[in-house]
Amino acid sequence: MHRSRKVTLLAGGVGAARLARGLARLVKPENLTIVVNTGDDERFHGLHVSPDLDTIMYSLAGLAPWSPGWGIKDDTFTAKHALERLGAESWFALGDRDLATHIRRTQRLSEGAPLSRVTAELCAALGVRQRILPMSDDAVRTVMRTSVGALPFQDYLVKRRARPRVQGVSIRGASKAGPAPGVLRAIRGADTVIIAPSNPLVSIGPMLSVKHLRVAMQKARAKTVAVSPIINGRAVKGPLVSMLRGIGKKADNASIASLYARVASTLVVALHEAPVEKSLRGWPVFAETDTLMSDELGAERLARTLLELGEPPACG
Amino acid sequence: MHRSRKVTLLAGGVGAARLARGLARLVKPENLTIVVNTGDDERFHGLHVSPDLDTIMYSLAGLAPWSPGWGIKDDTFTAKHALERLGAESWFALGDRDLATHIRRTQRLSEGAPLSRVTAELCAALGVRQRILPMSDDAVRTVMRTSVGALPFQDYLVKRRARPRVQGVSIRGASKAGPAPGVLRAIRGADTVIIAPSNPLVSIGPMLSVKHLRVAMQKARAKTVAVSPIINGRAVKGPLVSMLRGIGKKADNASIASLYARVASTLVVALHEAPVEKSLRGWPVFAETDTLMSDELGAERLARTLLELGEPPACG
Repeated sequence: MHRSRKVTLLAGGVGAARLARGLARLVKPENLTIVVNTGDDERFHGLHVSPDLDTIMYSLAGLAPWSPGWGIKDDTFTAKHALERLGAESWFALGDRDLATHIRRTQRLSEGAPLSRVTAELCAALGVRQRILPMSDDAVRTVMRTSVGALPFQDYLVKRRARPRVQGVSIRGASKAGPAPGVLRAIRGADTVIIAPSNPLVSIGPMLSVKHLRVAMQKARAKTVAVSPIINGRAVKGPLVSMLRGIGKKADNASIASLYARVASTLVVALHEAPVEKSLRGWPVFAETDTLMSDELGAERLARTLLELGEPPACG
Repeated sequence: MHRSRKVTLLAGGVGAARLARGLARLVKPENLTIVVNTGDDERFHGLHVSPDLDTIMYSLAGLAPWSPGWGIKDDTFTAKHALERLGAESWFALGDRDLATHIRRTQRLSEGAPLSRVTAELCAALGVRQRILPMSDDAVRTVMRTSVGALPFQDYLVKRRARPRVQGVSIRGASKAGPAPGVLRAIRGADTVIIAPSNPLVSIGPMLSVKHLRVAMQKARAKTVAVSPIINGRAVKGPLVSMLRGIGKKADNASIASLYARVASTLVVALHEAPVEKSLRGWPVFAETDTLMSDELGAERLARTLLELGEPPACG
């Protein structure tokens, strides 16, 4: 029944990748589209790295580890060690198999292929049958305004291990960026749009900063369900809590609800948070499931809940 | 005694790398300069690969295998296999450690560093104390004119395994190229210049096609010794014989002598060839050594012979 639903997922990295795998167990591949943040994209060693696209792609190709982390399961780091010896910066660890992705992507981009086409090629080569779309073919870059100055996102997150105090987030290039081909259609044509339990500021935020994408999401509000990335006042992964505090918000579901108020009509929160947060700012809050997705079956359970929430009311 | 001689070696790939290692056993590192062919340079996967520079560099760093072949000893090919899966051409096999060199080189070149500087950086990182200079910082590319049309050198040699019949060799970009910084000084200032047993058409030829380098070599003729790459009418490695025939020459030492007549004053040939070729076109031919260099001691023996040939006559 869920298999024929058309579902579009807005995705950041690891949490979104888990949910994508859960959805892939329920929805026909051709009916599942994942629109992915590219604000984290960065050049390392002169190569174009798209961390979120790769995390989603590797996950759906069955190549990613389930536990938090990026890259390819059981990858080796021979080239990384050799690059270190040659004096290259090595704070962003790229495995040998992973490196092939970045080399190929960089080559195709330099040949003039847009990121969306390159992504489709990579997915086809890895046997991914769901559609993975970058949010934009244009360069949009997340820059963290911090106590030590403006830092490109990976510099802040990986090199400095998210230690600098965040004062704000800038999404550079967003005003000139358009959605990648297929993105608007995927949002408009979906039966259900799901916002993954990703960071609303640096994973979903960059997508919503692309004007036409944001407008499409606002129009799709009624059919859009967001999953809160907050559990017990903490994010499962990443520096969301300190970021929220840095911009003057509490690290709670109410903050998440306020950030998504114009683009989603339901918030799904972790089960045990239900008693305290039956509704937030007038939203229906749905809280019957495990949003942690500690294994693939957990991801499938959450996916099923989301699909049921998005179902049209039964007739009669 | 040899240690304080200033020696400059004109080098192609594997044969030259062996001789470089032999020379390195006898000459002080700061007195040995190797000027290397870059006509074979090519982009693979969008990365700048300099096969001859790398062969020489890896050899002097103790990273190369002795037996014919390129790349790094015991390298792994994880990224190569992943690139194949992603649909990239894979006829030029780059190992994981080797790949790091090309990634780093490409990055530094894209940052605006000239190839000679990048080469010096890579050598320093790998602990190579001899000076390795690309023949030019400009793009000079060897193109084979063959029975199936014009082919970039690596395409002819590796992809098509040197099967197309060679009708000629074009060195593109040579007329606009200048020698890399330090090359002319290395030739002028050397006590002995040695032309390695490399392919005179596609390894040494591209160097001599760079005008100022050629003129410097012509002026250095009296102190220059060339080692013939022909043994028993065959080349130790590579398609030299069919190339020579393709341009209407015999595959013998007389052909080598004619090709080097204006830039070298002595030709060293394999020991057993001595009886038949005491002199060629009026050249002194020296033939007392094993030019095959089947191991490092063999390379040292050849190097010693070359240094002795280049010695000034003893006084008294």
